[in-house]
Amino acid sequence: MAYERIKLERLKDKVMTAEEAVRFFKNDMVVGASGFTKAGDSKVVLPALAERAKTDPIKITLMTGASLGHDTDGKLAEAGVLKKRMPFQVDRVLRNKINAGEVLFIDQHLSESVELLHNNIVPPVDIAVLEVAYIDRDGSLVPTTSVGNSATFAELADKVILEINTAIPMEVYGLHDIYKAENYPHRNVIPIVAPWNKIGRKTISVNPDKIVAIVFTDKKDSPADIAEPDEKTTAIASHILKFFENEVQLGHLTDRLLPLQAGIGKVANAVLTGFKHSNFYDLTMFSEVLQDSTFDLIDSGVLSFASASSITVSSACYERVFGNLQKYRDKVVLRPQNISNTPGLIRRLGIIAMNTAIEFDIYGNVNSTHIAGTKIMNGIGGSGDFARNAYLSIFVTQAASKNNSISHVLPMVSHVDHTEHDVDILVTDIGLADLRGLAPRERAQKIIDNCVHPDFRDQLQSYFDRACARGGHTPHLLEEAFSWHLRLAETGSMKK
Amino acid sequence: MAYERIKLERLKDKVMTAEEAVRFFKNDMVVGASGFTKAGDSKVVLPALAERAKTDPIKITLMTGASLGHDTDGKLAEAGVLKKRMPFQVDRVLRNKINAGEVLFIDQHLSESVELLHNNIVPPVDIAVLEVAYIDRDGSLVPTTSVGNSATFAELADKVILEINTAIPMEVYGLHDIYKAENYPHRNVIPIVAPWNKIGRKTISVNPDKIVAIVFTDKKDSPADIAEPDEKTTAIASHILKFFENEVQLGHLTDRLLPLQAGIGKVANAVLTGFKHSNFYDLTMFSEVLQDSTFDLIDSGVLSFASASSITVSSACYERVFGNLQKYRDKVVLRPQNISNTPGLIRRLGIIAMNTAIEFDIYGNVNSTHIAGTKIMNGIGGSGDFARNAYLSIFVTQAASKNNSISHVLPMVSHVDHTEHDVDILVTDIGLADLRGLAPRERAQKIIDNCVHPDFRDQLQSYFDRACARGGHTPHLLEEAFSWHLRLAETGSMKK
Repeated sequence: MAYERIKLERLKDKVMTAEEAVRFFKNDMVVGASGFTKAGDSKVVLPALAERAKTDPIKITLMTGASLGHDTDGKLAEAGVLKKRMPFQVDRVLRNKINAGEVLFIDQHLSESVELLHNNIVPPVDIAVLEVAYIDRDGSLVPTTSVGNSATFAELADKVILEINTAIPMEVYGLHDIYKAENYPHRNVIPIVAPWNKIGRKTISVNPDKIVAIVFTDKKDSPADIAEPDEKTTAIASHILKFFENEVQLGHLTDRLLPLQAGIGKVANAVLTGFKHSNFYDLTMFSEVLQDSTFDLIDSGVLSFASASSITVSSACYERVFGNLQKYRDKVVLRPQNISNTPGLIRRLGIIAMNTAIEFDIYGNVNSTHIAGTKIMNGIGGSGDFARNAYLSIFVTQAASKNNSISHVLPMVSHVDHTEHDVDILVTDIGLADLRGLAPRERAQKIIDNCVHPDFRDQLQSYFDRACARGGHTPHLLEEAFSWHLRLAETGSMKK
Repeated sequence: MAYERIKLERLKDKVMTAEEAVRFFKNDMVVGASGFTKAGDSKVVLPALAERAKTDPIKITLMTGASLGHDTDGKLAEAGVLKKRMPFQVDRVLRNKINAGEVLFIDQHLSESVELLHNNIVPPVDIAVLEVAYIDRDGSLVPTTSVGNSATFAELADKVILEINTAIPMEVYGLHDIYKAENYPHRNVIPIVAPWNKIGRKTISVNPDKIVAIVFTDKKDSPADIAEPDEKTTAIASHILKFFENEVQLGHLTDRLLPLQAGIGKVANAVLTGFKHSNFYDLTMFSEVLQDSTFDLIDSGVLSFASASSITVSSACYERVFGNLQKYRDKVVLRPQNISNTPGLIRRLGIIAMNTAIEFDIYGNVNSTHIAGTKIMNGIGGSGDFARNAYLSIFVTQAASKNNSISHVLPMVSHVDHTEHDVDILVTDIGLADLRGLAPRERAQKIIDNCVHPDFRDQLQSYFDRACARGGHTPHLLEEAFSWHLRLAETGSMKK
């Protein structure tokens, strides 16, 4: 039954175990692997590589779409396999190695990895490791729950190792839209004017002669952690929904809104869930990842189409979607991440982008990645692709945490991922600040009035007032700008 | 002779003096004025408004394409006319008022003002003040030396005041390509795949009934200041040219390179001039402003086409270009700034972007706008539109200044306009650092090795080493990150 998933006869003798396949990896190779927000990642070959490294040390550069599941990044990091890693990760073990300086991490806008590969700016890919549902009769590949950078890895790699995942029904065929942008200087327009436009092929083309190994697996994707909405996420979602309703009243938007992008996490799920009981209708998504809430909204008839690069859902939702593909096939498409996240489409379609911040400051600069300016959490992911070019760029975070000892609204962020120029709306559980068309001093007062936790309001107002007294377009007291972070490190609290 | 520039007969009775025209301005109005990098700005109406305000106080919000010439911003600021100003300025007097908190300045990506206007996010334009070469028979407008945001101001304003500039030959007709992007959600592709594609009309359409005043002037644009290349700019240009040559050798680029964008200033002129005596040929520009060097390169046969939103040149070059329009018409086009700077085209065409920094830090974050994190110089302009979406994003600055008491390469920039994610190449007179595909710790060492002034190298290496000892993906010592700026303020030097 598994062999029927290899429809090109001559490839059947490439089947082997993961342990056999990892013999193709040599020291210092560049590996391009499928996987985007834990979806469609290598389930057996990369873990087998980590196993092998325990007795037979090896170091590689690993590129993926985005994050991997199954603690694979952690296993690889622990086994010392990773020399360089790009463009995204979410693993605790790997993160510690990165912060210790043991793994070099390149934190990249997700739309850009393919650009760098095609332009030969990063080293060429030696081996691609790609999860597929099956190999079609022409040797082309049917992806699974994500597309990510797989089409480019397949095109550029010297050797290709395939993981055929038999847990994915073959009816997944048709869920993907594989479009390849031309290389410079002969690049044409990407002819998408609405989220539901399909412009490419259904499979990933690859030269079958490059396929050196085929490994079977039936392991499912790591399920998404679905955290129940709490008081804070509910408050944030409610501020955003009220804001959307008001924008409709003002005539800025219609009840259809514009295509939505939502970063991964609780708040995005809470906002999308909030649409279920609203006047909004015929909504669409043009995002990078689809979560449970997307399929809930489709089922409830509120969302009519969703475009992304991966599907990352809970176990229950996974069964629902992949057991009913005929139902969702016309309502969902998965694209390469250089298409899902490309600046031109985000500007053209007028995306409403919602992403999570670690902290933001009184002028609207956002830190999405670093704790205390130094230690990375995950990475910038696609937030920059979307925020810079969106119709509306929204960032959310809790106002305060750890018994309100930490304020997430600060005099100055310790690391900038999104500048004031790219941030339209900031939201905490306390409230929402609409910063569009405001000068820095106006933005600051609005953020202090609307977003900061009451425990920190006077302290933040005092900073701003004293900075203004000294003057400037963006008043700051450089000697005090990081004092909140430093106080936290010294005393365990940002409070004076 | 001047009246023949009003080809729609019934508009001839709208001719009046600038002093008469400014009666249309009321307190609190929003004014949209032509002008981009001093080119094609209002020469008489806005100055007359500043005059009027001396005896008859008035406050307005002023939007333009970019900066104005003739000290107009300064005159308006001095007369207390400006309440809000967007999206760019370069005036000393206005800058001081902004930094004193007396004028609210909205520092915006230049591609975005039109988006905000069309989406009704910023207040509607009450009056447009547009410099034109003449009014065509259908009432449409022939722009002069810039397009900027004029087409949108003409479309959206309640009233339109025209300044017909008789110094501009009527043969300027055909130099402009006026394309209007559709509004959401019905926006189509912008069908440009090469700098020389013309996709729009030659004139700006306007409802003639909205034209309330026509004023004649023969004042020319403020000439660009052409500073002779000095030792530092020559060194920077030579590093960049050597880098391009090497990229060609590596096969990353051909001798035609890719379309060039160059910010205004000495370094851009020096780099472009350097192309004259090189192997590069058939070069093109897709930029926001064209300077003297563009026309020198066209004349020498190295540059075959240049697209931008304005022409800002010296007096001599102005005569050369506008006295020989038949020669340049097929080699130059001026577009609206939401087209010249639009993210999708910048990514599609693969722009090589060169812009100037005030300072940058060891991880590649760039400050383009603020002195000591607080006082604005000019504004971000188009640098962010280009840097984020370019094929290659280059930032230049001198390594040190003021007798080497100030280092422009720092532990941490005091304000971030361009994050490490958007910066590929950093150049000072000392050298060039290619940061592509590097992790933060690698970037830091490369910048210290290649870009910092020798007087500051040990001091910067010490910061980096001590930060690394403490750990982190992007090692920093928050308590010391701004110590160089603070030392400068206290002692007059950044040196320890």
